Amino acid sequence: MELLKKIAEGIKGLDEQAMKEGKKRMDSLAKPFGSLGRLEEIAIQISGITGKVKNEIHKKCTIVMASDHGICEEGISCAPQEITYIQTYNMLNGVTGICAISKAAKSDVQVVDIGIKKEMNHPKLIDKKIRMGTDNFAKGPAMTREESILALEVGIEMVKDCVEKGYNLLGTGEMGIGNTSCSSAVFMAFTGCDAKTSVGKGGGITEEAFENKKRIITEALKLNNPNPDDPIDVITKVGGLDLVGMAGCFLGAAYYRVPIVIDGFISAVAAFTAYKINPLVKHYMIPSHHSKEQGYLRVMEEIGLEPILQLGMRLGEGTGCPMAFHIIETSLSVMNNMATFEEATIMNDYLVDIR
Amino acid sequence: MELLKKIAEGIKGLDEQAMKEGKKRMDSLAKPFGSLGRLEEIAIQISGITGKVKNEIHKKCTIVMASDHGICEEGISCAPQEITYIQTYNMLNGVTGICAISKAAKSDVQVVDIGIKKEMNHPKLIDKKIRMGTDNFAKGPAMTREESILALEVGIEMVKDCVEKGYNLLGTGEMGIGNTSCSSAVFMAFTGCDAKTSVGKGGGITEEAFENKKRIITEALKLNNPNPDDPIDVITKVGGLDLVGMAGCFLGAAYYRVPIVIDGFISAVAAFTAYKINPLVKHYMIPSHHSKEQGYLRVMEEIGLEPILQLGMRLGEGTGCPMAFHIIETSLSVMNNMATFEEATIMNDYLVDIR
Repeated sequence: MELLKKIAEGIKGLDEQAMKEGKKRMDSLAKPFGSLGRLEEIAIQISGITGKVKNEIHKKCTIVMASDHGICEEGISCAPQEITYIQTYNMLNGVTGICAISKAAKSDVQVVDIGIKKEMNHPKLIDKKIRMGTDNFAKGPAMTREESILALEVGIEMVKDCVEKGYNLLGTGEMGIGNTSCSSAVFMAFTGCDAKTSVGKGGGITEEAFENKKRIITEALKLNNPNPDDPIDVITKVGGLDLVGMAGCFLGAAYYRVPIVIDGFISAVAAFTAYKINPLVKHYMIPSHHSKEQGYLRVMEEIGLEPILQLGMRLGEGTGCPMAFHIIETSLSVMNNMATFEEATIMNDYLVDIR
Repeated sequence: MELLKKIAEGIKGLDEQAMKEGKKRMDSLAKPFGSLGRLEEIAIQISGITGKVKNEIHKKCTIVMASDHGICEEGISCAPQEITYIQTYNMLNGVTGICAISKAAKSDVQVVDIGIKKEMNHPKLIDKKIRMGTDNFAKGPAMTREESILALEVGIEMVKDCVEKGYNLLGTGEMGIGNTSCSSAVFMAFTGCDAKTSVGKGGGITEEAFENKKRIITEALKLNNPNPDDPIDVITKVGGLDLVGMAGCFLGAAYYRVPIVIDGFISAVAAFTAYKINPLVKHYMIPSHHSKEQGYLRVMEEIGLEPILQLGMRLGEGTGCPMAFHIIETSLSVMNNMATFEEATIMNDYLVDIR
C-alpha cells in the first residue's frame, strides 16, 4: 500500500515548457502546418513526458501479465483454462503472436506470472505470482483488497525494473483465459453502462455462451455491488490479476515518465482503471489499434483517446503494441530528422517560406 | 506504347494455390481464428503475389515522382510553383518528411524528375523528365496522349529497375505543387462525382481559393470533356506527370508481381487510374493511411480498399508508405514465426486444440 500510495500520489503532469518548444520545432519543419497529424502530436507528447524536445527510443518492450480467472467455471470463455499456462509457456519460448510481431519491431517481451493457476518454471519467466488465479466473481469477490493492491504494485515494480534496464518505451499485454469477462465487468462497474455495450465474444464463443456471458456478468455486478468511486473496490470485486497488474504498469509509467502503449480491450480497461486512480496517467498513454472486441471504443472515449491502427485485430497478448512502437519511433524521427523551413530554404539559396 | 501495351495486357491475377496454402497455414497458427485481421489478409495477399507461402522483404523503397503543373497559374495552390524544385532538392538531400519517415523504417527513397519546370542536377536524382511541367488544364489539355503514355512507361520502368536492384516492396509518393487539383479532376472525370466530394484544400488554402479551386476544376472538365471510358484520354487532358508516373508504377508492380503501397489522395487517384486500365492491379496494392484530404475515402471505396493507419496526415511525398511497410513486414513475421497449434501443443506435451 505504501508503494501504491507513493506512486499514485507522485504522478505529475507533462512538462509544458518542453511541449511548447516541441510544438515550436514541429511547426518550423518544412511541411504544411499540422500535415503530419498524429505523428506531430505523439512526438510533442513525448517531449512533454521526457522534458526534451528531441528524443530517441533505446529499448522497448511489451510487458505481458499472465493469470487465471475463476469466472472460467461459468463456461463463458473461448478455451479451457489450461490454455493460459500453455500459451504463457509458448510465449516464453518465443512463438506466439506477440513474439512474432515483436520480432518485426525489434522489441522485447517480458512475461510475468501474476497469478497462473499452476506452478510454472521457465528461465525467462518473471515470477510475481500473487495467488493461483482469482475466485469466481459470479459467486463473490474475485480477490481481497490486499491482493489487488499487491497486483497494482507488481505492475509498478515491473515498470521500475524495465526503466532500470534501459527501456524507454513500454507496451502492455496479457494472457489469461476469461479476462475479457472481468474487463467488461470492471468497465460496467465504473461507468454503469450495460452488457450490450461492453461485453464481447472474446476469443470467440457461441451465441448461447455469449448470452450467458452478458447475463452472468450483469448478475455478478449486482451480487458484488462494487463502489464506482473506489477503484480498488471495483478491481477487487470483479477484476483480474492480469488486468490489475497492467493498471499498475500505467501508473508506474506515468510516475517514471515513460510513454506506455495500450493494446486492445483488456489493456484499455486497465488503462481506464489507472485513469480512475489518477487521471494524469492519461498523458503518458499512447493508443495502438482499434480492437474488434465490443466495448473497446467506448473505453477509449471515456479516457479521451483515439487508436491509430485499423487492423481488425482481437488477439490480445499486447499484439498492437510493437506496431505502435514503430509509429512512435517514426514520430520521433520526424522531430529529429526533418529540416526546418530555414534550413530547407537556406540550403537552396531561396528565401521562401514554403508554407 | 509497345511497352505499356505489353505490361497492361500481361498482368495476371494472384496465385490462388499459394493463397490457399497461405490461408491454411494462417488458420493453423496458435490464435483464435481470424484474430489478427488485416495482418492475416496482407500476408496471404503477398503469398498470392509471390507464389510462396512464406515471404521476406529484402529491400523496400518509396518511388517519388516529382513534376510541375500548369494549373498553378490559376492561383489555387498552397505554395508557389518553385517549391516543387526546392522540396525535390531537399528530398534528394534526405531532409523532407518522407526521408525522416523512411529512416525509421529503414527504407529507401527513389526520387524521379518526371517533369519539373526547371533543369535539375543532383547525383541522386533519377532523370526521366518528359517535359517542363504540364500545360494549364483550365485552358486545354495538360499534355499530349504520347506524353501521358511516356509517363506511364516511366513508372513501369522505375518498377523494373527497382525489382532488378532487389527491392521487393514498393511505395508511391509525389512532389508537385498543384497535384491535388489534377488528382481531383482525374477522379471526377472517371466517376462523374462533383467537386464538393472530391476537391480538398491540398497543402492548405483560404476559403476563397478553395471555392475557386472547385469552380476552376469543374469548368476545366467541361472544357476538356475527357472520355471516362478511355483512361489515357482522362490523364492526358486533366492529369499530371507525377500522377501518371505513379499510375505506371502500379501497373509495373502488378506485372512484375511485387506488393505496392498507396500513400494519400494523389497516390490513391494514381492507383485508381491504373485500376481503370486493368482492374487486376488492385490485387497488388496495399493501402496505408487514411488521408485527411477530401475525397480520399471515396477513391478507396471505388477501388474497394480500406486504409490501415489513422494518423490524420495530409503531407503527401509518400509519407504513409514506410509505416505500412512495417505493418506488412509484421504480417510476414506472423506467417513465418508463429507456431502452429500442433507445434504449440506438442511443445507442451498437451494435445489440446487451443482454438
